[in-house]
Amino acid sequence: MHGCHCTGQRACAGTYSSVFVGTSLTRCDWKSQLKAGPGWGKWKQSLPNWDIITPIMCFRISINQLELELHHILPSLDCHIAVYSAMFYIIGLGLCDERDITVRGLEAVKSSSRVYLEAYTSILMVQKERLEAFYGKELILADRDMVETESDEILRDADREDISLLVVGDPFGATTHTDIILRARALKIPTRVVHNASIMNAVGACGLQLYNFGQTVSLVFFTETWKPDSFYDRIKDNSDLGLHTLVLLDIKVKEQSEENLARGRKIYEPPRYMSIPQAVSQLLEIEDMRKTGTLAADTTLAVAVSRVGGGEGNERIVAGTLAELAAQPAETFGEPLHSLVIVGKRLHHLEVAYAETFAVNRESWRGVAQSAYGCALDEQ
Amino acid sequence: MHGCHCTGQRACAGTYSSVFVGTSLTRCDWKSQLKAGPGWGKWKQSLPNWDIITPIMCFRISINQLELELHHILPSLDCHIAVYSAMFYIIGLGLCDERDITVRGLEAVKSSSRVYLEAYTSILMVQKERLEAFYGKELILADRDMVETESDEILRDADREDISLLVVGDPFGATTHTDIILRARALKIPTRVVHNASIMNAVGACGLQLYNFGQTVSLVFFTETWKPDSFYDRIKDNSDLGLHTLVLLDIKVKEQSEENLARGRKIYEPPRYMSIPQAVSQLLEIEDMRKTGTLAADTTLAVAVSRVGGGEGNERIVAGTLAELAAQPAETFGEPLHSLVIVGKRLHHLEVAYAETFAVNRESWRGVAQSAYGCALDEQ
Repeated sequence: MHGCHCTGQRACAGTYSSVFVGTSLTRCDWKSQLKAGPGWGKWKQSLPNWDIITPIMCFRISINQLELELHHILPSLDCHIAVYSAMFYIIGLGLCDERDITVRGLEAVKSSSRVYLEAYTSILMVQKERLEAFYGKELILADRDMVETESDEILRDADREDISLLVVGDPFGATTHTDIILRARALKIPTRVVHNASIMNAVGACGLQLYNFGQTVSLVFFTETWKPDSFYDRIKDNSDLGLHTLVLLDIKVKEQSEENLARGRKIYEPPRYMSIPQAVSQLLEIEDMRKTGTLAADTTLAVAVSRVGGGEGNERIVAGTLAELAAQPAETFGEPLHSLVIVGKRLHHLEVAYAETFAVNRESWRGVAQSAYGCALDEQ
Repeated sequence: MHGCHCTGQRACAGTYSSVFVGTSLTRCDWKSQLKAGPGWGKWKQSLPNWDIITPIMCFRISINQLELELHHILPSLDCHIAVYSAMFYIIGLGLCDERDITVRGLEAVKSSSRVYLEAYTSILMVQKERLEAFYGKELILADRDMVETESDEILRDADREDISLLVVGDPFGATTHTDIILRARALKIPTRVVHNASIMNAVGACGLQLYNFGQTVSLVFFTETWKPDSFYDRIKDNSDLGLHTLVLLDIKVKEQSEENLARGRKIYEPPRYMSIPQAVSQLLEIEDMRKTGTLAADTTLAVAVSRVGGGEGNERIVAGTLAELAAQPAETFGEPLHSLVIVGKRLHHLEVAYAETFAVNRESWRGVAQSAYGCALDEQ
């Protein structure tokens, strides 16, 4: 191979604010040859903000232009040039622990000069320290405020060095990260999303087919005076079509007591997670008001899931009627986060058979599936 | 620490057909101490199928019983015992290439004595050989027939050694793997699902909120005589609720020509993937028959996605009206697999803004969002 050829990661097909270049030349060769090259004077002039971070060079140029320019400066050298641009990574961590990150995600974390851990949309099953030990990186906690209002701080220098934001689940799962991606776009910072499992697809582990799910809903903590019930209409919409509904249960983090709030003290209450019995109680409370027959304690089947993918020691999947689930002690459902699936009438007998393993009471599970859902279980 | 303590991976809290035990004792110590222990005669009698695969021992026992028994046999020894059971792993590979496997999944692959790669539900962006090189393991291709009809061969010895089945996306994504899991359950083989991204959640990358998606549909290749159109009713159901619809486009692999089929020759045609223009054409063909106004060439917005998560070089997201998408050349949509999102009327102005980057024509994208979807874009 003769001349200068750009290879390597070419994710940066557009023009970005920064591109890094590494070569097969040694440090001395690279710098001296570059500066001795015939095009150097012109290039230096046209790219005043160049910088050599040997063997990496940082400048503002498109990849196509780069290839041409390097060929011009280093016409007689046999060398390979690996090109990559700095990147802002948003990395899904999956649902369980430090080992659920993808290999791609782990590589990005290791290449990043700052790594943020978003700690609000969900909770991890492991502590920050364990993640740090596994990744070999210090993590900067970023709460909701920070991701929403201080995105420029998170994105600082992301045009010149890799920066990662870690999020539980998938970056486009229950909470999306479109705001910070739009901001990165506006700043012309190349962004890469590293996908992972989220509860929106991993819920399939309960044996109900994802094809049979309608829209997902969130259920927030009711207070004495505030009982938002739009979720009910959505469950009803799904239910009328025979579809299952994934209900994501509320978490409260960084809550302040009224006294601390009044006194302006930034002291936060411990996090609260809605339990399955509480969720069932809220669902039935609204059913009692609306009386559409969408939900019924003894004839609506549901499946509670927590820590999906966490293995036998962590994952809990519990199936039963709403009344059965409400009657279970908290331990039955394991550690938070909890989600609840309301089973729709388009229930397939294979779904019944698969989820039966998780049933509080197998007979009643099968019985209700037959009597209230019309599943022909004898056909199995 | 005095006495015998079970530590290590205790995923196997139930009673399994096999458990492996490794100790901190050396090979000689372990065997001789075990056999010299006071409880050995009784244990040997009660567990006739024991086997020492030093420093690993294989037998049929529950973990709790094991701890008691070992304590009884080796009462005076200071040793740690790491316990784990053999496992059947179903591992999601995610959506792109060899680096999308999770660290947990990679560890399972490396510990497995046989690794199957399911090659039918979707296609990888990379070849089997590249996966093999990265994993350091030979992969056994398992097509649909094999996973469905030869699950016992896949599960062979999975009670005594780790076996992995790799699937593209998530094991509970568009195609579920409940059959083989049910079979493993029946054989009392402990199973662990390693989740990953699937198109069912990664589609959020197009900027449309997963909360606003209704049921997912599949669109199969029409033939002259067979045009199944139940997907249309589902799109209409979603559309009537204002919801987006993820449409998964058909792939045909291992098809035989009529001649080869007639002659019983197992010669297969090259794989076929439905293109976005073909999908749009089929959608509009059914709309023409049904005439419910659910879909309209010029006023229904849609987003084509392929190779989500594949980075700038691979991922393609293209937004426009159905007519605009149908008019694009094939290259616009990149390599298969393709999926299509039909945009529902509950479109939020932030969704419009985010997806605008991907629009064939930004003005028409915004124009239709305003006129046909009623999005108040000026509020941005």
